[in-house]
Formats: sequence, C-alpha cells, structure tokens
Amino acid sequence: MKKFLDLADFEPAEIRDLLQLAQRLQDHPEPAALAGKILGLVFFNPSLRTLASFQAGMARLGGSSFVITPGQGTWQLETRLNAIMNGSCAEHIREGIPVLASYCDALGVRAFAEGKNLQSDLSESLFKIIDGLCDKPLINLESAANHPCQALADWKTLDDLKVPQRAKFVLSWVYHPRALPLAVPAATLHMAAMRGMDVVVLRPEGFALPGELMAKAKTAASAAGGSVTQTGDRAAALAGAQIVYAKEWGTTSYYGDADADMKLRADLSDWCVREPWFKHAAADVKFMHCLPVRRNVAVADEILDGPRSVVKHEAFNRMVVQMAVLHRLLR
Amino acid sequence: MKKFLDLADFEPAEIRDLLQLAQRLQDHPEPAALAGKILGLVFFNPSLRTLASFQAGMARLGGSSFVITPGQGTWQLETRLNAIMNGSCAEHIREGIPVLASYCDALGVRAFAEGKNLQSDLSESLFKIIDGLCDKPLINLESAANHPCQALADWKTLDDLKVPQRAKFVLSWVYHPRALPLAVPAATLHMAAMRGMDVVVLRPEGFALPGELMAKAKTAASAAGGSVTQTGDRAAALAGAQIVYAKEWGTTSYYGDADADMKLRADLSDWCVREPWFKHAAADVKFMHCLPVRRNVAVADEILDGPRSVVKHEAFNRMVVQMAVLHRLLR
Amino acid sequence: MKKFLDLADFEPAEIRDLLQLAQRLQDHPEPAALAGKILGLVFFNPSLRTLASFQAGMARLGGSSFVITPGQGTWQLETRLNAIMNGSCAEHIREGIPVLASYCDALGVRAFAEGKNLQSDLSESLFKIIDGLCDKPLINLESAANHPCQALADWKTLDDLKVPQRAKFVLSWVYHPRALPLAVPAATLHMAAMRGMDVVVLRPEGFALPGELMAKAKTAASAAGGSVTQTGDRAAALAGAQIVYAKEWGTTSYYGDADADMKLRADLSDWCVREPWFKHAAADVKFMHCLPVRRNVAVADEILDGPRSVVKHEAFNRMVVQMAVLHRLLR
Repeated sequence: MKKFLDLADFEPAEIRDLLQLAQRLQDHPEPAALAGKILGLVFFNPSLRTLASFQAGMARLGGSSFVITPGQGTWQLETRLNAIMNGSCAEHIREGIPVLASYCDALGVRAFAEGKNLQSDLSESLFKIIDGLCDKPLINLESAANHPCQALADWKTLDDLKVPQRAKFVLSWVYHPRALPLAVPAATLHMAAMRGMDVVVLRPEGFALPGELMAKAKTAASAAGGSVTQTGDRAAALAGAQIVYAKEWGTTSYYGDADADMKLRADLSDWCVREPWFKHAAADVKFMHCLPVRRNVAVADEILDGPRSVVKHEAFNRMVVQMAVLHRLLR
Repeated sequence: MKKFLDLADFEPAEIRDLLQLAQRLQDHPEPAALAGKILGLVFFNPSLRTLASFQAGMARLGGSSFVITPGQGTWQLETRLNAIMNGSCAEHIREGIPVLASYCDALGVRAFAEGKNLQSDLSESLFKIIDGLCDKPLINLESAANHPCQALADWKTLDDLKVPQRAKFVLSWVYHPRALPLAVPAATLHMAAMRGMDVVVLRPEGFALPGELMAKAKTAASAAGGSVTQTGDRAAALAGAQIVYAKEWGTTSYYGDADADMKLRADLSDWCVREPWFKHAAADVKFMHCLPVRRNVAVADEILDGPRSVVKHEAFNRMVVQMAVLHRLLR
Repeated sequence: MKKFLDLADFEPAEIRDLLQLAQRLQDHPEPAALAGKILGLVFFNPSLRTLASFQAGMARLGGSSFVITPGQGTWQLETRLNAIMNGSCAEHIREGIPVLASYCDALGVRAFAEGKNLQSDLSESLFKIIDGLCDKPLINLESAANHPCQALADWKTLDDLKVPQRAKFVLSWVYHPRALPLAVPAATLHMAAMRGMDVVVLRPEGFALPGELMAKAKTAASAAGGSVTQTGDRAAALAGAQIVYAKEWGTTSYYGDADADMKLRADLSDWCVREPWFKHAAADVKFMHCLPVRRNVAVADEILDGPRSVVKHEAFNRMVVQMAVLHRLLR
C-alpha cells in the first residue's frame, strides 16, 4: 500500500484484509511496530478526532508524529498554481508539502472543499496536486469529496455490530445552520455500496447527491451485489431501515451559492433526527453519525443518548482502522 | 487511584505516599514506567506550565501525549446540557470527552470557572459532568474551584524546604487588573490546612473567601492539627509569617459582577507584594506564587528576584508531582 | 557544546566536525541516541520547517519534544525588563523561560527582531536576556539577527553539492510586500564568509547590510581565505555567480520606519528572480532560498521549479544538521 486516498482505489478484498489487520492490532497490540517512524499531519481545517486518533494511534504503534496547522502557529499556505503571492499566504504548498514530507515517513493532509465549484471539488483538484507534491505515503484526512478514514471506521463498525451485508442503509441529510462539504456523504455512500448494502440516500429538494457520486456508488454496488437509490420520501426511506446514517451537507442544486443554500434550508429545521424517525425502522436499527454533531439541531439528545446510537463506537474505530492503515503504509 | 480531581478525595497519608513516590521518581527515574501509555490533554483555557510539564513528565516516564485546544485547531465545544446547538459550538462535550477518552489511557482537562454564579462554580458543576463522561482516569488540570496539581506541587515545595508543619502560612490576595478565578486560592487554602499549617487568609474588603471553602479547609485543619482564619489586617497577618503565598482573585461579595469588581479593586493597587511586606515576617520567610504573575502589578521585581522567592521551585515541582500522579493512575 | 546561538561562536573546524556528525547520522541513524531526552520549543513567531524538523529530528534520535506558542494556547509573554505588567502579557520571560527550561534537557527559542532599533536588534539584546535565563543548552531557532540552524543547513547543502570553497556566492535582496528581518541575510553572509567563499551582497539603494554585519563577515572571510563585498550593480554581481542566494529584508537606511521602507520598495518589484538573472552566471549555478518564499513576487515559478533550485535540499538539511546539534548538546 503506497497511499490511502479513497476506498475506491482498493479491491473489496483488500479492504477486508485491512479491517482484519485492524482487528488483529486491536486484539494483539504491536507497541513497537512503527518504532522510529514519523507521521506528519497537516490540517488546513480544524480537527478533533482525526488529530487525537492519529497521534494516539501512531504512539500505540511506537511511532511519533508532528502537527502543522497553517494559519495557526504556521503562516497560511497558498494552494493556487501560478499565483502571484502578494496576499496573506507566505508559502506555497509546492514548497510546503514536499518539505514536510521530507521530514516524515508518511504525511496526512486535511483540506476541505473550496465550496465554489462542484466539478472542481468532485475532481479533487487540490488533493491531486498535493498527491503529486508528496513522495511519501499520503493519507487523506478529509479532502474536498472524500473521507476514507471515516468510511473505513464505519465499515468496521458495521462489521463489529454484525450488520448483514445487504441490510438497508439509509444515508439521510439532516439540518445544519449552514452548508457543509460533501466529503462524508460521498465517502459513506460509496463505502456502504462497496460493502454490498442496499443504500438509500434520503434528502430534501435541492440536496440530491451529484450524479458522479451516485454513478461511482452504483458501480461499487453492482460489483458487491447491493443497490443504490435516492429519494425525498422520508417515510418510504426509513421504513425497514437497519442503519440510519445522518449527515449534514450543502445544496448541490446551487452549489457554492450561500444565499440560495440558506433559503433552501430555511424551512428544513424538522430534518433533525428524533424518535419518530424510527417508528417503522427495523427493530434492531442502529443510528450512525461521523461527528461532530450539533445536538438538537441535526440530531436530538434522545437519539444520541439512546440505545440505537453507535456514534462513539464509530469514533473509537477511527483510531483502530487508522492504525491498520499506518501499519500497512509504514511496515 | 482512579482519578485525581481534589486533594480532599485522599487521606493525608495517601498524599504523603504520593509525595514520596514523586521524590523517588525524581531520585530514581523510571524512563520506561509508562511505555505505550497515552495521556490526552484538553485545554478549554490557556496554559504554559501545565501543558509543558505534563507532556515532559509523560515523556520522562516513557509515555506519549496529545493536546486538544477547543477554539484553536479544534472547534469550540458546547458544555451546556440540552443545548440547542445553533451557535458557535460544533460539538458537545457529551461526544467530545468520551471520544477523546477512548483514544487515551488517562485524560487531563482544564476548564476554568464560568465566573457568573458562585454556587455553580463552587459545586464544580461542569467538572462533575466531565467526570461523568470520562471512563478513563481523569486529571483536573484546573477546574472552576480547584487546582490539585498546583496544590500537590506546593505541598512538595514546602516539604523540600523543610517548612515545619505548623508554620504560619499566609495566603494573601494581590492586585490584578481584572477578576481571576478562585481555583488556586481554594486549592492552596485547603492544601495548607490539610498539611496542618496555621493558615491566615489575608484579603481586602469584598474578597473574603466563601464560607464553603473556609469550612472545607477548617475540617482539614482540624484533622491535621492546624488552623484556618481570615482577616483584612495586613500587618497582623504578615507578622511572623513563615510563608507568604500571593494570589489574585475576583470579588466574592459581588461574584460575577465585573463592574462591581473593578470598582472594588480600583483603590487596591498597593496590594502588590513589595519589600515592606516582609518587615515583621519570620527571618526565613519564603515567598510563593503559582505563576503566571504580573510583575510590578501583583508582585514586585525585588520580591520575585529576591532570595525569599521559591516560585520556580514550585513550578518545577509541578512536573515532579504530576509524574507521581501519572505513575499511580497508569501503572 | 553548551549552546547553539551563532556559528561565529565556533571555530571553522568545529563546524566541519558538526557537519561530519550530521552526515554520519544521515548515513547511520541512531534511533536511540537521545532516548529519554526532552526538547522544549518556544515560538514567539510562526514556524513551519523549524517546528516540524526539530520535532521530527528529535523523534528520529529517540527523544521527545513539546511546543509552547505564546499568544496561541499560551498567554503572551512579557520580554521588557522591569515592565509594569498591566497590559496584555500575563507572564514574564523571567519566569517563563527558566520554568520551561526546568522541564526539558534543551530549549529552542524563536524570537524575531523587534524591528524598531537597528543597534538593539543587532546586539541581540532580547536573546542575550533569554540566554541568561536558561540554564539548559539553548538553541537559537531564529533571533533578531541570526539563524544559525539555517546557516548550518545551507553550509551542508553547499558541501553536498560540492560547491568549491572559493566559489562566487551572491546574496541578493529580493522583493517582498513588506520589510522582513535581517536574521537570515546576516547568518547567510557570515556562513558563506566563514566557509571561505567570495561573497557579494547585491541589494538596491537603502538596503545595504549594516557595517557591523559586513565587518563580522570580513573577519570570518579573512580567516578562511575568502572575501566579502557589497554592491547595487546587479549585472556585475551576477556575472559568474556559482550560487545565487535570494533573501528579502527591510530597509537599513531607515530601519524601523515602515513608511520609508514602503516608499523605497515601491519601485523594486523587478527584484523578483527570473530566468534572465542567470544569463551570465556560471554554467552550474545553483539557486538557494531559506523558505518560505512568495512565488512570482520574490522568486518566479520558473526558477523555483527549474533545475538550478536547491531550496528543498536546503530545507531537508535543516533536519539533518539540527539532529547533529541536538546530538552534540544532549549526548
């Protein structure tokens, strides 16, 4: 394994191997496996779980890590090619990324979507540049349209909970005060499809997941024996759901238009997951969310604190699967 | 030992054991004692000594640590139960604390007083919630009304200096441009009482330490054979003092009222410790302060740079005693 | 070796020894050389390479590090002696530096020039105070008028590239939107002189390097058999250049006067290194810069991405030589 950027870069069997390694490391710790190895972490955007779980995971394998946060302690980094840098950025990623890569054995980078142009974000234009600048194993800590560490952790959580392969997996849009990126919905949709589940994307008008993401997921679903559909009919979607995976994202109909997005979501505050959402779900339905989550805005206290929620299990699995990724990249 | 939140949770003999362990680790380092162990550190408020001494102390025992600073690199964390999170906080401590705890072997948290309601702060309402959310050993890095790591370091400093048990210990209010929390005065008062000293709290009108804190200290003093009193008479308090421990805190008469506090302290800028304060003190009087200290505002250069000051000794002991706490919690 | 503050504190033979150690550690890693050792890093100013390369280098030698950033996570630190601290600084370096030093085995400090008074900055008044407060090995991570880690890395880069001792080394001023400190030009000038090179400082009117810096470099050049001159004639300077080392700095004629500096540089935007600069340079001329660099403002893309540039090699050598410094200080 040379890099970890997208679950779609791997065969399903390779992902299952990786999940087995994660379980093995959980059951039989290897506290010296990465002794002397160094992980560099670059956060263009804030983090809680990713920072802590990568630093802790690396330490549990005997390695070390350092953290760079452009704009905090470090100057801002320019990402536009050919820019005339007379503004606020003091250094270009064309220097910053290869230099940091030269100090470490693997580099993790978080760089959210710019949120202006859908095609640009879906094509991962920035992350492809970063990948081209990094000659060490690169880990995607959440890019414009992907979050493979979260997807892998969620896959393990589904396995841990013995959720059947063809279970009904509902990825539902939920309310948030403003537009959020497509990275987690894109990664979740593809992961569930790749695992062979029957995936239903539930979202209000104006928030349909883009055709490119649906097509990619359908390809994965076909290969795995599952299915992928999209609907605005909440009752139909939630009926018989075995997984309800809630996530906030911005309008795709008017991508990058903050005003249009605000207008669209103005009347959608009832897209906060509450008890009635589960009335016709499967008896053993589980509730998932990648966190952070705004309580009583996106998801009600009663759900997060109730027996169906596995959000902390998902978060713990972030560390577990990332240790497997680090082990595979650096051992 | 399951957690380290308040010296009052321990018997004096247990504290003396802990101090012996601290001395032993100082004399005979154990560089592999906590190999593979991970300490998580969460700072809701700024830190210098606490951050550096915990990271260094953990490393000296062979362990690792990670740091999360809500609002800097990490989004702000909501602490109010049942909040409708449509404001600036992206995540609730109900998720944040247990998730971070799941990545580490012990969690340290700093969360200062809200400074609005005295009873709420004295009851440690927030820290009790945090404690309830954390299933790993929890360390108080300074809470609303406590700072047990500082208190333990100060106790060791008194022992290092061979200050007699029943020495006269004067905890004096000193000037600061604005109100500061009660955490250190509360912890210091109780520590000195628990050590069996004759404690005098010296403070101007409007800054009396609350009855609850005095009562808790008196209970500790009774058990240890010491005493606790409170006065506004500087000359009487300082006469014969063997320890002068300076600390800044806010008005308790008008707790949470910044304007009233400013009015009260407007004429108190002579509460800056200077040479004449020691005129009638004991010949071998020592000067203590937990740091940070504003020079020539709270304490004059001549005192901090003079022969009585042991403030750097106290700060060094932070690392020494915290290593004992970590050793006891994680070994 | 007790501290690492200025290459001028060492004999040329000692520097060559240090560079040999750097190469040895590069060729034959010593992953346990500094096991149990702790490096404290204090950044009064932002950093990318210095932070990452010191944390990575320390880890590669088996040691640990902690980072303190006054103003970010830690309150601001007062540096003025005898200050009445009623402003924004909550702690004085007279406490902060010795306390942090007491937690670690070596302390690195970055503190840029104040940029008001040339004599004060050239005399390293602040860094001398910091040195006096630190009883552990102190490392200069860039001070008012020095950057010995950068200079040592650049020396190694010249050696790695087999640049002859008496090669023509042109240190050229380049454009930047605002004044930057003299630390790197001062350190580079002295390093190249100490290595015995023929050094030409090329700069526009108003940006001559101060006499003190030239005199110090001339002393070093005399001892090493090289030379040091200064000119505003770009064509003459660049003719036959074997090294072009670009750097931004502020006016020295009106030091500390931001308006005068802006006026002076208003017409100097053609001091951006481009292809024609190398027309009459040596065939194997190399281009150097300490980074960060503003692309297409100080140096054009074509140069940074072209075959002459060794800026990433220089940056990588930061880690390599700093490991030798740490090894020498702590072993």
